[in-house]
Amino acid sequence: MLIRKIADEVLTSGKIYDNLHTLTKTVGGRINGSPQTYKAEAWAQKALQEAGAERVYLQQCAIPHWVRGGKAEVKMIVNNKETALNALALGNSVGTSSAGINASVILINSFAELEQRKNEIKGKIVFYNYKFNPKFIQTFRAYGDAVRYRGGGASRAAQYGAVGMLVRSMTESTDNNPHTGAMTYNDSFPKIPALAIGLWDADKLAWAIQQNKSVHIFIKSNAHTLPDTVGYNVIGEITGSEFADQFITVGGHLDSWDPAEGAEDDGAGCVHSIEVLRVLKAVGYKPRHTLRIVLFTDEENRGSGAAKYVAEARAKNEKHVFALESDAGGFTPRSFGVSLSNERLEKLRSWIPLLQEYGVYEFSLGGGGADVTPLNEILGTPVGELIPDSQRYFDYHHAPSDVFENINKRELELGAINMAALIYLVDKYGL
Amino acid sequence: MLIRKIADEVLTSGKIYDNLHTLTKTVGGRINGSPQTYKAEAWAQKALQEAGAERVYLQQCAIPHWVRGGKAEVKMIVNNKETALNALALGNSVGTSSAGINASVILINSFAELEQRKNEIKGKIVFYNYKFNPKFIQTFRAYGDAVRYRGGGASRAAQYGAVGMLVRSMTESTDNNPHTGAMTYNDSFPKIPALAIGLWDADKLAWAIQQNKSVHIFIKSNAHTLPDTVGYNVIGEITGSEFADQFITVGGHLDSWDPAEGAEDDGAGCVHSIEVLRVLKAVGYKPRHTLRIVLFTDEENRGSGAAKYVAEARAKNEKHVFALESDAGGFTPRSFGVSLSNERLEKLRSWIPLLQEYGVYEFSLGGGGADVTPLNEILGTPVGELIPDSQRYFDYHHAPSDVFENINKRELELGAINMAALIYLVDKYGL
Repeated sequence: MLIRKIADEVLTSGKIYDNLHTLTKTVGGRINGSPQTYKAEAWAQKALQEAGAERVYLQQCAIPHWVRGGKAEVKMIVNNKETALNALALGNSVGTSSAGINASVILINSFAELEQRKNEIKGKIVFYNYKFNPKFIQTFRAYGDAVRYRGGGASRAAQYGAVGMLVRSMTESTDNNPHTGAMTYNDSFPKIPALAIGLWDADKLAWAIQQNKSVHIFIKSNAHTLPDTVGYNVIGEITGSEFADQFITVGGHLDSWDPAEGAEDDGAGCVHSIEVLRVLKAVGYKPRHTLRIVLFTDEENRGSGAAKYVAEARAKNEKHVFALESDAGGFTPRSFGVSLSNERLEKLRSWIPLLQEYGVYEFSLGGGGADVTPLNEILGTPVGELIPDSQRYFDYHHAPSDVFENINKRELELGAINMAALIYLVDKYGL
Repeated sequence: MLIRKIADEVLTSGKIYDNLHTLTKTVGGRINGSPQTYKAEAWAQKALQEAGAERVYLQQCAIPHWVRGGKAEVKMIVNNKETALNALALGNSVGTSSAGINASVILINSFAELEQRKNEIKGKIVFYNYKFNPKFIQTFRAYGDAVRYRGGGASRAAQYGAVGMLVRSMTESTDNNPHTGAMTYNDSFPKIPALAIGLWDADKLAWAIQQNKSVHIFIKSNAHTLPDTVGYNVIGEITGSEFADQFITVGGHLDSWDPAEGAEDDGAGCVHSIEVLRVLKAVGYKPRHTLRIVLFTDEENRGSGAAKYVAEARAKNEKHVFALESDAGGFTPRSFGVSLSNERLEKLRSWIPLLQEYGVYEFSLGGGGADVTPLNEILGTPVGELIPDSQRYFDYHHAPSDVFENINKRELELGAINMAALIYLVDKYGL
C-alpha cells in the first residue's frame, strides 16, 4: 500500500524536521520586508529543488511593509510606581512620538461595554481584556471570537477619542508572553498606537484598575509603516503524467511575525508542503496532475501572495483540481477541514479508513486556510486544510515562544504523512 | 447534556492543573521508599478529600525498595581519552564496588546478535543499541518492542560472562536524556550493573566502537536494594446511590521514577482520576454505583499496589462493574483501549458520537494498564485505559524531562473530561 510506504519513508528518512531546523535557526523570523524574508525565499527555492521539484520559480507581488522599530516600552503607573508590562506592538500599528504617551487607562471587557461607556473614553488608553473562551474545544474558535479586539479594537476606541489601545494577548497560555498579529485601522478615525500585553500582565493591570481610582499607562513605540515592498511566492512543480495542465496545490506561508522563528506559524506548513513533494517522489509515485508546492508570501498581513496566486491562475485560465494548506501548526494531525460539495465530502470520508492509522479520522466541512480560500471563492476549486490538534497552537502563535524547540519531530512528520496520503488519493482517484 | 456540563466545569473551574502543580512541585519524584512517597500519600488523601470523596483510606502492602545511591558515573575511554556519558542506573540494578568497573565494551544490536557472538562476551560490558522502530505510529508499540533489552538484557548478557550492561534509552527523543525504568535479574546468573544512556551518547559510543579496535567503559554506581518497605494505595470513595456494593474504579499510580517529577508518569493519571470524582460531584451527578478513585502504589517496580487491590476485592467478594486507568500521560486524548466482551465494545462504540467533540473517537480492544489489568485477569472485570496521543510520551518517560512544564493545561483537562464522561455513561447506562 502506497500510504504505508509514504509513512515509512517520512518516519525513517524524512527531511522535514531538518528542513524546519534550517528555516528556523539559519533564517529565523520572516516578517514582510525584513532581510530574513529574502533569505527565506532563497532557502525555499533550494529546499524545493532538493526535494525533487522539476521547476522552481517565483511569483512577484507588492506586499505591505510594517516595521516594529525595536522593542516597545509599556509601563503601568499606579501611585507613581512604575511596572513594566510585557508588550508587543500589533502589526500595522502606528508608534508614538519619541516622548511616548502617558494617559489614564480604562478597562473595557467587551465592545458592548465600550459602547455603554463611550463618554468615558476621551483622552484615555483603552485596555481590552476580552478573554479566550475556554469552553471552545477547538482553540481556533476561541481565537476567532477574541481576535476582533486585536483587529478592530483600536479604531473603535479611537472613534470615542482614545489615544492608545492595549489588548489582552490572543492566547490561553500559562505564561506571560505577548502575542502580536495584524490589526487594521478604519480611516475615518485617528490612528492610535495598539499593542498586545501578556496574560499575567493583563490580569495584573485589570486588577490594579479595579482596585485603584487612577492607573496610568506609558507607551513608547517606534512602529511605523513604509511604502509597499516586494515579496515572492516560491513555487516548485512536478509536471503531471496525464493532466499536465491541471493543478493540485499544496502550500503554507513563508512569512511570519517577528518575535521568534515562525516555527509553528507557519514554518511547519512550509516544510509539510515541501515534504509532500519529496516523499511522493521518494516512494516513486508519479502524479497524474501537476503538483504545485506554493510557499506564499505575506499571509500575515494583507494576503498579497494568495491574491497574486489566484489572479495568475485566473488570468491563465488554469484548471485547479484541489488545493491543500497547512497553517495550523506542526502538532499531531486529527482531521482535514474542507470546502467542497457534499458529494466530494462523501468521497473524502470514504478514505478515512486509509488515514485513521496515521491520525486523521474526520473530514469536516468549512475549512481551507487564508492562502487557498481565494481559489475556492474565485475559481470554485475544492480546498482543504490540515487540522492538527489545536490545544497548544495559541501558546506559541505570534509570540516569542514560536521556536523550533516547541515542535515535536514525530508530530510534524505525521502531518506530512497525512497530507501526502490525501494528495496521493486525490491525484490517483480524483475528487 | 451532562457531558457538556462536565467539560465546561473542567475547562473553566478545573482543579486538575493546580493539583498536578502541587504534586510535582511540592512533592516531586516519588520512588518507592523515598520520603516523597509519604508526602505524596498525604497529598493524595488531602486532594481526594477536597475533591469531595466521602471516605478516604489507605490499603497497605509491601513494596520493593531499590535505592539509586546518587548519580552513577559512566565514561567511555578511547585511546586513553575519557568522555562522560549521560547515564542512569536501571531500577533494581546492582551497583559496582567503590572502585567501579572498567572493561572492554561490545556493541550488540539485538538478542540474535548476542547469541551469535556469545563467545565474545566474557569479561566485557555489553552495550545494547536496539532502537525504537519509528515506523510504529503508536509509540507504545516501539517501547514494547525495545523494552525487552532494558528488562532482561543484563541477565542474558551475564549468562555469557558479561560484567556490566549499558542499554540505549527507551525513547526516540531528540535530546540526550537517559531514561531509567525497571529491570529484573534471572537468579541463575550473576547480577551485573545495568544502566541506560542517552541517545546522543548511544550513537557516539556505537560510532566509537565501530571505528576503533578497543573502547573501554568505566562504570561506578552505588545502586542497591534494601529490604521491602511499606507502601499504600490511597483510595477515595463516593457511595453509589443504587448499587452501593458495586464498584467502578478509576485510577493512576502515585509512585514514579526518581530523575524528575513524575509529571506525565503518572502524576497526570493521578490528577485525571481525582478530577473525575471532583467534576461529577461539581456538576451534581450522583453515581449509582460506588465510585472508587485509587492512586496505586508501586506500579513502576513490582505492581504490589495493583496486586493488593485485586486481592482485597477478591477476599471481600466485591462486584466490580468497570475499572478505568490513566497511565499514558497528560496529552490530548484520542481513544480508550478496553478489555471486555465484543457486546460491551459495541455498546461503548455507540457512545462515540457523545465523546468525539472532546477528542475520543475510538474504543480499541486490548487495553487496560498495569494497575487495572489484574482486575480483568482475576475477577473478569471489564477494564479500560485512556489513550492520549502518544507521540511525545517517550520524550519524557522515566527521564529528567518528566516535569510539570511539559504538560499542557488544556490537553490535561481534556483527558479528565473524557474519562469523567465515560464513567458517567457506564454508571448511568450500564456496560
